[in-house]
Amino acid sequence: MGESVLSRAVRILEAFTPDEPVLTVSEISRRTGLHLATASRLVAELTAHGFLARDADRRVRIGVRLWELGTRASPTLSLRDTAMPFMEGVHDVVGHHVQIGVLDGGEVLFLERLSAPGAVVNYTRIAGRLPPHVSSSGLVLLAHGPADLQERVLAGPLPAYTRHTITTPALLRSTLAAVRQQGYAYCPGHFHEDALGIAAPVRDGGGGVVAALSVIVPNDAGAASVVPVVRTAARGISRAMAARGPRGLTG
Amino acid sequence: MGESVLSRAVRILEAFTPDEPVLTVSEISRRTGLHLATASRLVAELTAHGFLARDADRRVRIGVRLWELGTRASPTLSLRDTAMPFMEGVHDVVGHHVQIGVLDGGEVLFLERLSAPGAVVNYTRIAGRLPPHVSSSGLVLLAHGPADLQERVLAGPLPAYTRHTITTPALLRSTLAAVRQQGYAYCPGHFHEDALGIAAPVRDGGGGVVAALSVIVPNDAGAASVVPVVRTAARGISRAMAARGPRGLTG
Repeated sequence: MGESVLSRAVRILEAFTPDEPVLTVSEISRRTGLHLATASRLVAELTAHGFLARDADRRVRIGVRLWELGTRASPTLSLRDTAMPFMEGVHDVVGHHVQIGVLDGGEVLFLERLSAPGAVVNYTRIAGRLPPHVSSSGLVLLAHGPADLQERVLAGPLPAYTRHTITTPALLRSTLAAVRQQGYAYCPGHFHEDALGIAAPVRDGGGGVVAALSVIVPNDAGAASVVPVVRTAARGISRAMAARGPRGLTG
Repeated sequence: MGESVLSRAVRILEAFTPDEPVLTVSEISRRTGLHLATASRLVAELTAHGFLARDADRRVRIGVRLWELGTRASPTLSLRDTAMPFMEGVHDVVGHHVQIGVLDGGEVLFLERLSAPGAVVNYTRIAGRLPPHVSSSGLVLLAHGPADLQERVLAGPLPAYTRHTITTPALLRSTLAAVRQQGYAYCPGHFHEDALGIAAPVRDGGGGVVAALSVIVPNDAGAASVVPVVRTAARGISRAMAARGPRGLTG
């Protein structure tokens, strides 16, 4: 009984997506497969706890209280806090997009992103997700990730986003080896023809890779000069993480 | 029955605080008053959903998945995204601390903060809370807040943080009127003797005050020159909010 109520409440919270952050109770009922009465009762209870909130027109959204509790996910917040001044420095010099991502559930989850107005196209967002084979961050995290995840991704499907996306297991395998060997990933047009991603690993005090720092810049000859900037900032974040203590991001 | 399970789960999540983000199951049981077996079962279920996570030593913390869902609190994220480039600009020029806060449950809840290394003391943090009478952000939000909240704070105890904290209802009332009239709050040493807070209101497209932008700088004569910087940035965020659409922060 208890399990079922909690699972239903989680299903309701998960019905909200970055693209559809505001839903009616009927929409929640349809998306979760819960009866309207059940959905309505659970929405009322979640609203009473501040996990959901109602707009003036009675539509429902995620509540500020859930955000507040979520920020207590301590390794996430501590990684983000440690990375922020380095990211701001890179952003001042390089412009465009600077972001930090971690592996979560076999995908890249972006914890933070700084973007300049008028920057080159980028479809990532804070708390957004991408499959690991299409982005520079994903290649770095996969190259240093668990062997079983590598095998699962290599067994793939590896859907193409552009004609430059890595779509064969052989190329992905050799690219991951190259990323490990050279210390960064360089992805011209893999995700969007006009954009180029560069990512480098962030390590915690124990030496394990816990995150990837990446920049997205225009896909042209100027990008090569950004590589040492990204690598240097990623090293700086790693040293700052080591100085803060041994606890890594194990989630 | 359902209500009780969900309330217990919420109580467990709320046992984690910014100061104690990692707890054992025994500590969770003590803090929530739940039996160890109940706490243990709910922790296992919340962990299965990714709302909690276990460290290698079996200690429990808030999970990255809860953070991810929390970022879908759309008005919060959209306010923060809109404010960020203005906050970065202020931070580049003024240094020290730049932060944005909203009213939640009668307190100031800080959504974002940029801090420089070696900046003047500041005890706020992201997702941290302060009572409204002690900080410049709080005075701005209270000055433009609901009348019943103003009466409640004026009636309430007004604890002193320093000898400059506003502790009498008469002074608080006249200060709120001055904040409304002059368009900003200026708080030398109210929260800490060495720090000075300056805050200005952020309005949504409907003209209502939805947030306060503030800087914390050293408590000296140089602070006065920062006032127009904060006011200008707060106006800029307000205009950007209006351009994005009419939805305000109603939570």
